[in-house]
Amino acid sequence: MKGLYFVTDRDLCGTKPLEDVVSQSVRGGAACVQLREKNLSTRAFVEEARRIKKILEPFGVPLIINDRIDVALAVKAEGVHVGQDDMPYQIARALMGPNAIIGLSVETWEDVEDAERFDVNYLGVSPVFETPTKADTKGSWGLEGLAKIKAFSRHPLVAIGGLNPGNAGDVVLAGADSVAVVSAICAAPDPFAVSRNLHEIIAGALKERVDRR
Amino acid sequence: MKGLYFVTDRDLCGTKPLEDVVSQSVRGGAACVQLREKNLSTRAFVEEARRIKKILEPFGVPLIINDRIDVALAVKAEGVHVGQDDMPYQIARALMGPNAIIGLSVETWEDVEDAERFDVNYLGVSPVFETPTKADTKGSWGLEGLAKIKAFSRHPLVAIGGLNPGNAGDVVLAGADSVAVVSAICAAPDPFAVSRNLHEIIAGALKERVDRR
Repeated sequence: MKGLYFVTDRDLCGTKPLEDVVSQSVRGGAACVQLREKNLSTRAFVEEARRIKKILEPFGVPLIINDRIDVALAVKAEGVHVGQDDMPYQIARALMGPNAIIGLSVETWEDVEDAERFDVNYLGVSPVFETPTKADTKGSWGLEGLAKIKAFSRHPLVAIGGLNPGNAGDVVLAGADSVAVVSAICAAPDPFAVSRNLHEIIAGALKERVDRR
Repeated sequence: MKGLYFVTDRDLCGTKPLEDVVSQSVRGGAACVQLREKNLSTRAFVEEARRIKKILEPFGVPLIINDRIDVALAVKAEGVHVGQDDMPYQIARALMGPNAIIGLSVETWEDVEDAERFDVNYLGVSPVFETPTKADTKGSWGLEGLAKIKAFSRHPLVAIGGLNPGNAGDVVLAGADSVAVVSAICAAPDPFAVSRNLHEIIAGALKERVDRR
């Protein structure tokens, strides 16, 4: 997992159809899209996931479903993202198979230590900064927390929470391999332009990190 | 699918732990239990389903999960019940396998006709009578509607909606093979006694239906 990671939030998209925002994000350079829906019926979620998958396929961008393994299996999504209140990681792996991309949110240091024994594809470091998008978290990691996890964990890190073009570079330099963005893309008047900008900032910072070594 | 079918509703159980109510319903004669949860996290739903499954196993009573195939797969439940807004039936069958019990709710005549081409294990005739438990339906079938479906469909019928000891017998005589009960058990001061009463009424009416032929 590397680069710009777009996480959807239909409520933040306003009048823009979600499909359009997803399409613009991947044309702008998003390397991964996570579909997050908390209020749709299973039927509507499956239908939407199928539409989004068709948009992503020509770009070779993987579709990750938040929490709902039934929906992921129904549309043959490339992966799922699970939080600490979602499906336990090992059951998610058993159901999705060895080739699926499975990300796991870590909200506490105990979560980070626990995750070392799992073959997760990435850790979602959540949240890096305070954010109104997700209010049920246990405090934010900050750049220091992110750097501490990077030094400790063997897993790729996806940073999430309050991330935008103003802090994406710092987050990568602190240790994030991928930067997950919700509102900065969904709520933008021009999701394509913001995504392209984020993509360039992240790529630049990843290169700078390599050069520094 | 035959006999008493208990469908859970934790909000209606009041101060009684859901596990106790389930235990009492099967000791009273419930032949099937459907776990319906709309507000739990996936993790909490899985943990509860695991506890309920352990209660049912000694009785040989199958556990049916409402809507959530991920939860059903996680705990190896015997089946799922899907409504018209849930996972499409054919995907549910593909994910659950040929031996799973899969029930499908029918709310319109079109749903009944559609279901003839599916190898469902039963149709949930929903609702037979108006009920405050589920407000999002498209009108009730009544005993006449139930009899009409019985005459048309090749599938076993589970009646649901407003059913209790006062009408369970009539519902069986009209064509239901199984009677699904929610509030009459959940809200009862003595779920065991009500379940035993329902079990006897249903068994009696099933026998009477056979004798009449």
